[in-house]
Amino acid sequence: MKCRKCGAVAVINMRQHKLALCDEHFLEWIPQQTQRAIRKYRMFGPRDRILVAVSGGKDSLSLWDVLLRLGYQAEGLYIHLGIDSGGYSDSSLEYVERFAAAREGARFRVVDVKAEYGQSVPELARRTHRGRKPCALCGLVKRYIMNRVAYEGGYDAIATGHNLDDEVAVLMQNTLRWQTGYLARQAPVLPSTHPKLARKVKPFVRLYERETAAYAIVRGIEYIYDECPYAVGSTTNFYKELLNQLEGRSPGAKLGFYLSFLEAKRQGAFSQTKEALELNECEKCGQPTTAPGLCAFCRLWER
Amino acid sequence: MKCRKCGAVAVINMRQHKLALCDEHFLEWIPQQTQRAIRKYRMFGPRDRILVAVSGGKDSLSLWDVLLRLGYQAEGLYIHLGIDSGGYSDSSLEYVERFAAAREGARFRVVDVKAEYGQSVPELARRTHRGRKPCALCGLVKRYIMNRVAYEGGYDAIATGHNLDDEVAVLMQNTLRWQTGYLARQAPVLPSTHPKLARKVKPFVRLYERETAAYAIVRGIEYIYDECPYAVGSTTNFYKELLNQLEGRSPGAKLGFYLSFLEAKRQGAFSQTKEALELNECEKCGQPTTAPGLCAFCRLWER
Repeated sequence: MKCRKCGAVAVINMRQHKLALCDEHFLEWIPQQTQRAIRKYRMFGPRDRILVAVSGGKDSLSLWDVLLRLGYQAEGLYIHLGIDSGGYSDSSLEYVERFAAAREGARFRVVDVKAEYGQSVPELARRTHRGRKPCALCGLVKRYIMNRVAYEGGYDAIATGHNLDDEVAVLMQNTLRWQTGYLARQAPVLPSTHPKLARKVKPFVRLYERETAAYAIVRGIEYIYDECPYAVGSTTNFYKELLNQLEGRSPGAKLGFYLSFLEAKRQGAFSQTKEALELNECEKCGQPTTAPGLCAFCRLWER
Repeated sequence: MKCRKCGAVAVINMRQHKLALCDEHFLEWIPQQTQRAIRKYRMFGPRDRILVAVSGGKDSLSLWDVLLRLGYQAEGLYIHLGIDSGGYSDSSLEYVERFAAAREGARFRVVDVKAEYGQSVPELARRTHRGRKPCALCGLVKRYIMNRVAYEGGYDAIATGHNLDDEVAVLMQNTLRWQTGYLARQAPVLPSTHPKLARKVKPFVRLYERETAAYAIVRGIEYIYDECPYAVGSTTNFYKELLNQLEGRSPGAKLGFYLSFLEAKRQGAFSQTKEALELNECEKCGQPTTAPGLCAFCRLWER
């Protein structure tokens, strides 16, 4: 397989684009594609300050790298969740530190959940969600902290490393139950609905997982290979596997699923779904919340 | 496993309903469920004359059996497609004949495509669709003949044996490309949109394929086990396999996918999809057609 641009040996063949590229042109292509997505979905401009949620994995570190290469003001946020199993959180943080140390101007901050609030996410889950997996809770905690840091630091947008495989797995899950409210909200950009809630953007939303992984490897970014121990056997991974079977049979199926979904929404599917987004401010922390009184995050620590 | 109703040995366990039944109660349960679907989706009443499209397979023969047991005026229509491979069409017809011969009042008619129009479906496909599978063409031919026979015979509705697995495979296919026009039209009942087009109904739409198969077996209905030779390896079968993986992981997933889809439509999803259904009558045969001039069926034979 040869690079379509220069004829050198290709490092990757992207069947959905009928495009094979060598290392050099692939390392150019990823930022180009990212820039296109940023413009197409109006994610942010060169003057915006971007908070990149970094986990130490291939997606978020590649995203941070690409945003810096594109000249954006992108700072990192690492949320230390206190996942001990296999030293997961500590190792992840080391990858983030190593990444930032190797790049001038790559600044990041760490929020340590246990140090800040008294319990790690697994501990919190054991106390409040006895026996259940901490994943839903972890999502809540991360969203809260991202929003709070973005607000307090005056960032214009929160960027996450979600790739197309992540998005179509969620899309599949929402579609299999026709959760029209969730479907109406699933998008490459979630606009800010309150002055204390920053816009959320996913610049890698059209890149396949194998492409973000390949980018990290070719670019020499070291990242944590293990996935979160709680994600093993998850429904999301099950859907990813199903969708890969589909992709194997029809290259481009995943991308087509997502893009045609966005197009159907643009044409008004699910537009009848009204959201009454009357937001209150939490009595304790002041962050926006749907119900009056304490927000869901503060309620966790009150119990 | 014991029958929930009488404690006898169960012949089937339907995990999505948490319901195991013995042969006797299962043979009661299927017509009850069918009757419920007929009422819920307002398919037809006891005075309506129903044309059942019978292929000789488990679904359509079970459907015909159930409709007769429920006291409906259900007559069969067998369309002889002229599929020679393994004597498929001839064998299928024999199963239909045997079924009808064993039941008083089970009348049916045969339309032989080659005898009536000069070429079998595979021959027609070879002439007009060189090399491609005849499946799309076959669908067109069957729809045309069903409509025509229903109109000429004065039937109120055309009933087909589509089961839930058939429906969710199509739903998956339409959803993966977000074909909102098709999604808007996919339903247990297709109302008549023209005096010459009968209502189309699918009374088995909430039954899993394994249930219609079990019904045929327990009821002693002999049916053709082989599927159409052209269906082997089809996209539909591939989706059925994916959906069965899903069902294996979450019993009820297939049913939930379909019912929540209907509910989302009821709440207005895809309602923005306007269909300009201005129908003309074909210059040659008089059947309704979207374009002026000849209908798609008559055009096939003109080439």
